[in-house]
Amino acid sequence: MTAKDPLIIRDKDEMTKWSRFMKAQGSTIGLVPTMGYLHEGHISLVKEAQKHADLIVVSIYVNPGQFSPNEDLSTYPSNFEGDIDKLRSVHGGVDVVFNPFNLYDYGVGEGGETMKRGEEEKGEKVISCVESSKFGHETWIRVENLEKGLCGKSRPIFFKGVATVVAKLFNIVEPDVAVFGKKDYQQWRIIRRMVRDLDFGIKIIGSELVREHDGLAMSSRNVHLSPQEREKALSISRSLYEAKKAAENGERYCTKLRNYVAQTIQKAGGKVDYDEIVDQESLENVEVIQRPVVFCIAAWFGNVRLIDNMEINSLLFTKTKGKRRKQEKKVAIS
Amino acid sequence: MTAKDPLIIRDKDEMTKWSRFMKAQGSTIGLVPTMGYLHEGHISLVKEAQKHADLIVVSIYVNPGQFSPNEDLSTYPSNFEGDIDKLRSVHGGVDVVFNPFNLYDYGVGEGGETMKRGEEEKGEKVISCVESSKFGHETWIRVENLEKGLCGKSRPIFFKGVATVVAKLFNIVEPDVAVFGKKDYQQWRIIRRMVRDLDFGIKIIGSELVREHDGLAMSSRNVHLSPQEREKALSISRSLYEAKKAAENGERYCTKLRNYVAQTIQKAGGKVDYDEIVDQESLENVEVIQRPVVFCIAAWFGNVRLIDNMEINSLLFTKTKGKRRKQEKKVAIS
Repeated sequence: MTAKDPLIIRDKDEMTKWSRFMKAQGSTIGLVPTMGYLHEGHISLVKEAQKHADLIVVSIYVNPGQFSPNEDLSTYPSNFEGDIDKLRSVHGGVDVVFNPFNLYDYGVGEGGETMKRGEEEKGEKVISCVESSKFGHETWIRVENLEKGLCGKSRPIFFKGVATVVAKLFNIVEPDVAVFGKKDYQQWRIIRRMVRDLDFGIKIIGSELVREHDGLAMSSRNVHLSPQEREKALSISRSLYEAKKAAENGERYCTKLRNYVAQTIQKAGGKVDYDEIVDQESLENVEVIQRPVVFCIAAWFGNVRLIDNMEINSLLFTKTKGKRRKQEKKVAIS
Repeated sequence: MTAKDPLIIRDKDEMTKWSRFMKAQGSTIGLVPTMGYLHEGHISLVKEAQKHADLIVVSIYVNPGQFSPNEDLSTYPSNFEGDIDKLRSVHGGVDVVFNPFNLYDYGVGEGGETMKRGEEEKGEKVISCVESSKFGHETWIRVENLEKGLCGKSRPIFFKGVATVVAKLFNIVEPDVAVFGKKDYQQWRIIRRMVRDLDFGIKIIGSELVREHDGLAMSSRNVHLSPQEREKALSISRSLYEAKKAAENGERYCTKLRNYVAQTIQKAGGKVDYDEIVDQESLENVEVIQRPVVFCIAAWFGNVRLIDNMEINSLLFTKTKGKRRKQEKKVAIS
């Protein structure tokens, strides 16, 4: 198949119209929501979406609703033309890039017409989504338990911003399927829970985390790491691998595993935001591994906050415990 | 047209399937969400919906998510067969009655399959929507400013319950249009705001409040009033009418209007929960009437909490001020 140029849609109503037209023809639609500055991780989401739907919509929108004032909204990297080039080169291509200017501006009409965007500078950075006006955006979706832990502790408005913008994208694009990366594990769980609890008729697919050749989890924010910071940041994935191996070899006590990872990252010069081993479904803390868990990490290297995670599946653990026990000395982590 | 028997659907997936099938045939769908025990007010919503859509779905579901533990969920009146009879007698009829058993039970499967309801007693009262389980319903929609005032003060979880169940119904029924009564003025505004802020592709129609022949606002809860309480409760609509007339005749000061209404209701034996004059759009308190406002009342008569409201449109006010000033003495309210 030759390279396919995606249709670029910037207007909400036009997006909905396109989707409804295509669905009326019998096509299914897969949505991949992104904030742009695409890398191989995003491309893997597109490829996953292609398995589940006839037509692919990739949204590129840096959502101001999920950034606190002290966070990196203004420096979040972007390269729209580069993104389009990358999407064009995906085998099978994508059909639409939905790239709205501002999803939180509703104009002044009663009931809220969508903004007429002819006048705006497209390159301009959006400062805040919520005007301090009594007619501004004020509807937020809270996934009350899942949003609290992990990233929710240091980023208290993050997940209400994520859940809300995803609901908006779902209502605008009306996809049959949407794909989210398990790199953002908590986000993926929150979206699944929201879809279940609000009865969205959309299938949510979790796509595996993609790593650089040296193990660093792919992230648009990696571009901000200096070469030295990047090298040090490898301590995250390396210690997670070691911890996972140790768990598979019989180390069930989370404190020990967590201390090992935290210390390794700290020794490398990172500042740990959290290191937690949690239930894969409820994201509640686990003391002793007895069921599928996921080891979640957030750590700062320089001014860059990185997240990573690794699933430890009890099935694997149970199956391989006997076999792997022999190797225990090789992966001692204390 | 002869009486039409509505199709009764109890399963979410079946409801969505029906809607999608009908929409694929080119039909538009209008939704009228109710909690049952239908009266003429509901029927007026159905008639309004008929003007805007080809096919009509009436949902009948007493939503536990909007009742606090101390409220009247367990005594909320119901009469399903009577409701069906009433809907059958509407000219043009309705196409579907969506009457789910429990919208908050997702079964145990990961990702949440809808409950298989074969075993349950249909007549059983639902006690609470939210099991205290970490896998229970935990997603709630907050319309953060509009939910605070009026009924939100004494019913703090009410509007998050309403907004959430309406979003669920929207996602299950996927209507083109939905009709809400302006009797529940704050609810209507909250739903409109939610629809705008979350980009639901659904048109929201506000339908005028319907009154009994003597002026009492129609409500399913009126059935709980004793004949004496019912007579006393007329003080609400009567004083609101007087206040509206006074405003149209030039009385712009809200304190005076509010005191008149509160005193009238109290003299009749009612207990005022709130009496407020607010902006029609933002629902913020108004001191002096200079733009369209709505006079909102909640009051208890016996164990029954009643709400009522009356719009005072500044346009009318401006237009009729000169003409009406002559009558001022007739409607002195101080």
